[in-house]
Amino acid sequence: MTDTADKLIQRNQLDELYADFEDAGLIPLWNQRDDLMPTSPQPAAVPHLWPWARLLPIAERSGQLVPVGRGGERRAMALSNPGLPGLPYATPTLWAAIQYLGPREVAPSHRHSQGAFRFVVDGEGVWTNVDGDAVAMRRGDLLLTPSWAFHEHQNVTDEPMTWIDGLDIPLVSQLDAGFFEFGPDELSTRVTPARSRGERLWAHPGLRPIGQPDRPNSPLAAYRWEHTDAALTAQLELESEGVAGVIEPGHAGVRFSNPTTGKDALVTMRTEMRRLRAGTRTTPVRTVGSAVWQVFDGEATAHVGDKVFDVVKGDLFAVPSWCEVTLTAHTQVNLFRFSDEPVYEALGLARTSRGEQK
Amino acid sequence: MTDTADKLIQRNQLDELYADFEDAGLIPLWNQRDDLMPTSPQPAAVPHLWPWARLLPIAERSGQLVPVGRGGERRAMALSNPGLPGLPYATPTLWAAIQYLGPREVAPSHRHSQGAFRFVVDGEGVWTNVDGDAVAMRRGDLLLTPSWAFHEHQNVTDEPMTWIDGLDIPLVSQLDAGFFEFGPDELSTRVTPARSRGERLWAHPGLRPIGQPDRPNSPLAAYRWEHTDAALTAQLELESEGVAGVIEPGHAGVRFSNPTTGKDALVTMRTEMRRLRAGTRTTPVRTVGSAVWQVFDGEATAHVGDKVFDVVKGDLFAVPSWCEVTLTAHTQVNLFRFSDEPVYEALGLARTSRGEQK
Amino acid sequence: MTDTADKLIQRNQLDELYADFEDAGLIPLWNQRDDLMPTSPQPAAVPHLWPWARLLPIAERSGQLVPVGRGGERRAMALSNPGLPGLPYATPTLWAAIQYLGPREVAPSHRHSQGAFRFVVDGEGVWTNVDGDAVAMRRGDLLLTPSWAFHEHQNVTDEPMTWIDGLDIPLVSQLDAGFFEFGPDELSTRVTPARSRGERLWAHPGLRPIGQPDRPNSPLAAYRWEHTDAALTAQLELESEGVAGVIEPGHAGVRFSNPTTGKDALVTMRTEMRRLRAGTRTTPVRTVGSAVWQVFDGEATAHVGDKVFDVVKGDLFAVPSWCEVTLTAHTQVNLFRFSDEPVYEALGLARTSRGEQK
Amino acid sequence: MTDTADKLIQRNQLDELYADFEDAGLIPLWNQRDDLMPTSPQPAAVPHLWPWARLLPIAERSGQLVPVGRGGERRAMALSNPGLPGLPYATPTLWAAIQYLGPREVAPSHRHSQGAFRFVVDGEGVWTNVDGDAVAMRRGDLLLTPSWAFHEHQNVTDEPMTWIDGLDIPLVSQLDAGFFEFGPDELSTRVTPARSRGERLWAHPGLRPIGQPDRPNSPLAAYRWEHTDAALTAQLELESEGVAGVIEPGHAGVRFSNPTTGKDALVTMRTEMRRLRAGTRTTPVRTVGSAVWQVFDGEATAHVGDKVFDVVKGDLFAVPSWCEVTLTAHTQVNLFRFSDEPVYEALGLARTSRGEQK
Repeated sequence: MTDTADKLIQRNQLDELYADFEDAGLIPLWNQRDDLMPTSPQPAAVPHLWPWARLLPIAERSGQLVPVGRGGERRAMALSNPGLPGLPYATPTLWAAIQYLGPREVAPSHRHSQGAFRFVVDGEGVWTNVDGDAVAMRRGDLLLTPSWAFHEHQNVTDEPMTWIDGLDIPLVSQLDAGFFEFGPDELSTRVTPARSRGERLWAHPGLRPIGQPDRPNSPLAAYRWEHTDAALTAQLELESEGVAGVIEPGHAGVRFSNPTTGKDALVTMRTEMRRLRAGTRTTPVRTVGSAVWQVFDGEATAHVGDKVFDVVKGDLFAVPSWCEVTLTAHTQVNLFRFSDEPVYEALGLARTSRGEQK
Repeated sequence: MTDTADKLIQRNQLDELYADFEDAGLIPLWNQRDDLMPTSPQPAAVPHLWPWARLLPIAERSGQLVPVGRGGERRAMALSNPGLPGLPYATPTLWAAIQYLGPREVAPSHRHSQGAFRFVVDGEGVWTNVDGDAVAMRRGDLLLTPSWAFHEHQNVTDEPMTWIDGLDIPLVSQLDAGFFEFGPDELSTRVTPARSRGERLWAHPGLRPIGQPDRPNSPLAAYRWEHTDAALTAQLELESEGVAGVIEPGHAGVRFSNPTTGKDALVTMRTEMRRLRAGTRTTPVRTVGSAVWQVFDGEATAHVGDKVFDVVKGDLFAVPSWCEVTLTAHTQVNLFRFSDEPVYEALGLARTSRGEQK
Repeated sequence: MTDTADKLIQRNQLDELYADFEDAGLIPLWNQRDDLMPTSPQPAAVPHLWPWARLLPIAERSGQLVPVGRGGERRAMALSNPGLPGLPYATPTLWAAIQYLGPREVAPSHRHSQGAFRFVVDGEGVWTNVDGDAVAMRRGDLLLTPSWAFHEHQNVTDEPMTWIDGLDIPLVSQLDAGFFEFGPDELSTRVTPARSRGERLWAHPGLRPIGQPDRPNSPLAAYRWEHTDAALTAQLELESEGVAGVIEPGHAGVRFSNPTTGKDALVTMRTEMRRLRAGTRTTPVRTVGSAVWQVFDGEATAHVGDKVFDVVKGDLFAVPSWCEVTLTAHTQVNLFRFSDEPVYEALGLARTSRGEQK
Repeated sequence: MTDTADKLIQRNQLDELYADFEDAGLIPLWNQRDDLMPTSPQPAAVPHLWPWARLLPIAERSGQLVPVGRGGERRAMALSNPGLPGLPYATPTLWAAIQYLGPREVAPSHRHSQGAFRFVVDGEGVWTNVDGDAVAMRRGDLLLTPSWAFHEHQNVTDEPMTWIDGLDIPLVSQLDAGFFEFGPDELSTRVTPARSRGERLWAHPGLRPIGQPDRPNSPLAAYRWEHTDAALTAQLELESEGVAGVIEPGHAGVRFSNPTTGKDALVTMRTEMRRLRAGTRTTPVRTVGSAVWQVFDGEATAHVGDKVFDVVKGDLFAVPSWCEVTLTAHTQVNLFRFSDEPVYEALGLARTSRGEQK
């Protein structure tokens, strides 16, 4: 037989083999190894900016056109990463949305496996009831609604209010781990205390109520801007006095933590506030895992991978896995950041690289 | 203006709003809430059976037609869940493949973030070198190649060998957490000891070498069938003597564990061997998270969700999240099982439900 | 041989045996088993009261007669439990002392393995420098000087100041685990800031400076009365509103904790503040391990074992292991309590029994 | 007034003050600081040797003269450290005794908070029933009776048997943490299986019975010499092959561990077996905490602090805290060692220093 005939036979056999792979429910590794197991993370998600100036008017129009209520549950509009087309995901693990609640509106009670927080870049007047505890939402505050806690919102003012929601929806969805339950249609409470029960019990530095057990998620339902601001201010003042405390020169930061364990406030998401002095340029950092940042105030430029974002108050941007981030502060700038790092740390998959890449 | 005109205007405004959502990179929650946050897990993956009798001949044909070597790296054929079309994933988090190494063949060295194990349903003659430690692979053995350990295979016999590989490729891929590195092209060692160094140091019950630190993954590279068999035998004997130890009547089980921590042998995957007495019918169980089972020997019927699989030696089946599993043993049957449960436990997402559903 | 002769011989042999025990450095168990292993703890220490009215004048006289300086190191007078005669121990594990620092006096720098705290029942004007961080001491404050931190005191006023010291000296002594080192003879700093660096970095509820690692002892050098008071007030207010939070009806309590772990502020000692509403009678409690209580303000009766102590501000009393404690508050009363419970919890030796004993 | 008069008055006042200290139940620190807080541990316990040749005949004579039974409970003779006169303590935390059970004798059931183990330097024929599980005791075996487990012994042979007991009696006594309970007067079982239930369930390397929870103490009641010997042999063979594993050149060692956690087999005591090649001289080591060593076989010289002990099979020696230990092996030598190190590690008090002291 000739070489050509040999090759033809072999080609036929190979074709047949591949057809049989498909029939048998098999996919060979050797044609995909590169894609399945890249040299370093090759996220489909891309660095992306959602300017607040673009989001806010759309949120307001939704407020006029779309009712909020049972079924849809929330007037929340999710950031969709252009690298994950059609998916309402800011990154492969993080859901981030702008939520809008009109004057006197109410969003009904439900609970879910997904962990959630709210962060308020501006405004006030909404109370979130978390397992019956009424928690005021105000500018600069971080509010938690941990996994499986019933929660509902009410706006007690004549002004609308807007904030961002962060959830681990993509992660929980990918893991097929989500449970969801509707709560009562009526609000569990209409009280509007200045401080929630959770804060009254837990927001005392280093003090634990005796007899309260450890919990996987923080029992502190609200982290107030007043405290966050004071902590960041102190770090930069200490730096000026030559005392250690900041992350790096000109770059202060606090992590919202669970006072029962000292770990992240939520099991699956890291939440932080960073403050840069005007003029500070941060060390480039790459981290396995993804993050979403929102400018709380000030002006900065963010280099994220090969993108450059000039950002101002309210602007949100997504950082995919292993994408280098450098921030340059044009004024003093405060940035809220949330990420999925606790997931990687728990699974032995965390890696961080600092400094200019060669 | 008429009602109809009103509605038309509103419809136009809504259309415009939805168009602007898309422009702005937003996707509203209210149209997707059900899908994003179902009442209970609604996995796309389906229960599925891959009969060994179908896989083995295809693996053998691959051995004749497809070379193994640098680039493709391994002659491994992945189980593709029909619910995840086009993806080489047995479940959304687990990669399972049949690997084939011909007589005297070698698979080259590499390492990766993904954790991996091999399980041998039949045959012997291959040594896996893990960071230079040569580990024999034999019938019934579980072999580990933890995250970031260099590994390579060599078949030292004139017979081919087949086994299954389990990895957390889908999880690591979804998390964009994978790093990969080629090792040297030449084998690191050609020795073929009966016991690996890892076993010589660590395979002594309850004994730790002094001075060896805790490790996230087990330092015990091989769990031999001889020990697994003895442990399962003892559990059933103890049951006959009225002593506790089995999972439930007629159902023994061991978990492969990390002797430095007592936790799972691998950070991201649970590995277990189960033995059922002939005639045993297990309690129906639903678990958040997915699993792959392989029959090591014996005959059984597996009810998985709405599917019924009659299974014999070598057969593999996938169990998606929250899918009820019941096993009925027609003979004594040994089943190897691996799952992603450690991931859910680490993230506070684990749930299990036992007993008949109402 | 007669019975009597037999017995005589045996008696002689026994005498010889016991003599040989002694020679060989042996002590037989059978004559001591009861004492060595009692049915329940039989502490040598006894419940005891040290009235503040008795301690304070003695401390003041010491201030006039005894200099403070290198060698003796501190003008501290230790509570000596009458059940442990000659030993300066309040309980078998806890050292408690009244310390007195005269106007403008200084106590020199040293450090030791023993963990320490100060609690201030009255007065102010002293700063403790802990590893160079100047920490003001004021009424109601708890101040930490963890194991192996250099510390020194200075009184910057024209008034003397008195406080109590708590240390694990007896435990560390019994364990032969103590190291001690003198620091420089000169004060490390003379600054007198209102807030220490430790507080500025760490005293923000639920907020951690990013990048600061976990520590075995709390990095929060001072727990201020203002926060303790607010936390206790909130617990009792919440109780009035029907919300859980107190230890039991009328009995509020906070534990001073390490914000990096959520555990006790010090590895070897538990520190707590309790508040009873007037009229409250606590449930009798017995705990393995010992404690020292000091009345911060108010009036109460403490039943401790078979003793009854009527206590007022400043009074200290010791509670030996497994001794029942019941408190009855005649006014609202605040009580500082410290104990060795973390030791027992770490060693698997903790037990607590609540309610009237039969 | 003259200087002398002044001094007299001051002296009188001081005398009065010290008298009042005593009256008030106070002891001043300044006269004792050195003793209370030494520069480094100054144990009262001393290095001491108890030659087996001296202990064994005394144990045998006890067997003839002293009955074993309810009340005294055990025919155990405790090593009494000459530095702790009158106390049956080998070190301040460790109780070590030689126990003797005559032919067909029985020691009755009890349980206690104190953790315990047995180590057998020679002989066999006794079964210890631990919570009803009959555990054979044989040469080279380590047997556990964890805190609060009922246990009793029976000698089923016509030969006496001798072994050593290790307990944390001094620690638990100092902590006033001991509870004790008599069990039934009759043996719970008379079976004499070759393998205990605990071993049948747990003595499989790296394999955990599914569904068995973590436990503070090891569920593995017996660590057999066969496994210990194999592990030590492997370490030295690997060393000869150039593979890491030994503690230091010529010095192998295993730690008996809890397979559910990877930690020490007992919460409060570390248990280890060491093997030195003939000719090996170990690096001098000082550790906070105390230890007792027993030569299992071979001949060595132990330098312990300023003492030199020439030791052979069965000899026991005590190492007080922070006392330097160096071993020189004249033949291959196996040494059993137990210590209180887990206590210090749990309490943040551990320190070790290696190498020649300057």
